[in-house]
Amino acid sequence: MKRVVVTGASGFVGSHVIDALLARGVEVHALGRRRPAAADVVFHRTDLLDAGALTPLLARVQASHLLHLAWYAEPGHYWRSEHNLDWVCASLGLLRAFREAGGGRAVVAGTCAEYAWGPDYLDERTSACVPATLYGAAKDGLRRVAEAYAGTTGLSLGWGRIFFLYGPGEKTGRLVSDGINALLRGERFATALDRQRRDFLHVADVAGAFAALLESGVEGAVNIGSGHAVPIGDLVRAIGAATGRSDLLDIGARAAAQGEPEHIAARVERLTGEVGFTPRFSLDAGLAQSVGWWQENRATGLAGR
Amino acid sequence: MKRVVVTGASGFVGSHVIDALLARGVEVHALGRRRPAAADVVFHRTDLLDAGALTPLLARVQASHLLHLAWYAEPGHYWRSEHNLDWVCASLGLLRAFREAGGGRAVVAGTCAEYAWGPDYLDERTSACVPATLYGAAKDGLRRVAEAYAGTTGLSLGWGRIFFLYGPGEKTGRLVSDGINALLRGERFATALDRQRRDFLHVADVAGAFAALLESGVEGAVNIGSGHAVPIGDLVRAIGAATGRSDLLDIGARAAAQGEPEHIAARVERLTGEVGFTPRFSLDAGLAQSVGWWQENRATGLAGR
Repeated sequence: MKRVVVTGASGFVGSHVIDALLARGVEVHALGRRRPAAADVVFHRTDLLDAGALTPLLARVQASHLLHLAWYAEPGHYWRSEHNLDWVCASLGLLRAFREAGGGRAVVAGTCAEYAWGPDYLDERTSACVPATLYGAAKDGLRRVAEAYAGTTGLSLGWGRIFFLYGPGEKTGRLVSDGINALLRGERFATALDRQRRDFLHVADVAGAFAALLESGVEGAVNIGSGHAVPIGDLVRAIGAATGRSDLLDIGARAAAQGEPEHIAARVERLTGEVGFTPRFSLDAGLAQSVGWWQENRATGLAGR
Repeated sequence: MKRVVVTGASGFVGSHVIDALLARGVEVHALGRRRPAAADVVFHRTDLLDAGALTPLLARVQASHLLHLAWYAEPGHYWRSEHNLDWVCASLGLLRAFREAGGGRAVVAGTCAEYAWGPDYLDERTSACVPATLYGAAKDGLRRVAEAYAGTTGLSLGWGRIFFLYGPGEKTGRLVSDGINALLRGERFATALDRQRRDFLHVADVAGAFAALLESGVEGAVNIGSGHAVPIGDLVRAIGAATGRSDLLDIGARAAAQGEPEHIAARVERLTGEVGFTPRFSLDAGLAQSVGWWQENRATGLAGR
């Protein structure tokens, strides 16, 4: 990798991806509306939904690699939002502008919501993609068109399916960030789910996996998860332990949203075997690191940005 | 049906669809760059690839139904063209503008190229969609996103998968039109395929099926075919019989394109049972009618427009 264009660089995964890419010694160009925090990045301010702007911009940047993370991601809204349609089109336009400018290798952020959720670990090669949501369908439809476009034009395309993640910089309104912050404030924290299992990975490991996938040249869908289905109750108890405030937890006390699946977890043979990536954080170590970050950044007023 | 917006109305299927819709007594509004031939149509000149123009236009038209046939369709090019990406976006924008203007029922033209072609008759419910081409993948990806969008917004969406078609107004560069015209000119006509089977339906029946599907309210994919797999050799011999010039045929004399599948044909239980549509033309009757049309329009200079 020589020169990488990143979208969504100021987002939760993106900010960690920048660090992972810079650690690999590549030149990083960030495209988007907001300047990322990292200093060693070439920032190009643009609206990714403005198709006309991308072609000349990518022709100017002449990147060898593209990592496309940007998408509409407003918690509570993105599952059903019509903005998902805008991002299908923006993503196709971006891939095309990148390829037409001579780019050779792209990786796009997909989601576990592309799969039909079921009791089994989800496998890139054998599990069916039958998304239950507009968000999942938009990513799934985009991937199908993008893979055919890549096959037709000789673009190398990887597709990283994100499962559940947590860690420094996570927005409020999500389980781990809300849990940690409530307990650090000394407030009670009630959850809806208990025995439902999810696959959680620390955001720095998600970012590291994307950087490794981009460099690997592995094509097609690759799950980016831990490979472990952790009961939500266990996760929340681990947050209690990491903050030292297990006494404030009410696990399973709230009503669950309708249609919450019992089990969402990844097979990670492609990630570990083909990409060659191994996560750095166990769940306990990752939560402890996250709690430390919030303790520090709540004090300095950085959290919740 | 009260007021129907049609795209692609000046195209091969579209011009016949207009007749089928007018015969049902509905008010037809055609959107596109070229005015359709039919007089009793309200024409709105617009570029369907210009997303910004569609929202105010559809808000003004206030249609109850949408029949979206337009797509990039240049023979020989459309299988691999990057224009397929433009039409994914244009189609999503169109559906959204229609829905936001209060439209309730839409039908989009799909293709047999969405399926993984194989030895069996293709079935909407059981056959896998694994397109072999960018064109097929673009339609397949669009359908998946559009169906999720429809489910989220309450739009009723039907999807008519076109198989092979022929008839009055077909462009040159295609088997039946080239065959009929060569034989009518007294030229020899050589084909690449012989025993490969395809499902051919007269364009007036394809159009009638779309009009019936639009009115039916049937949701999801519906094959629009004859339900019969006819060997290409038999089809060409029937063209010879219909023109009275079987002596000019060289069936299977040319080399076939690589990857030509052996068998592409539709199960039509949804079309006949759920939509309630039955074709008017047998293959022999349809070819005879088509030959008559070319004899008449070659004489008056209308063919090949």
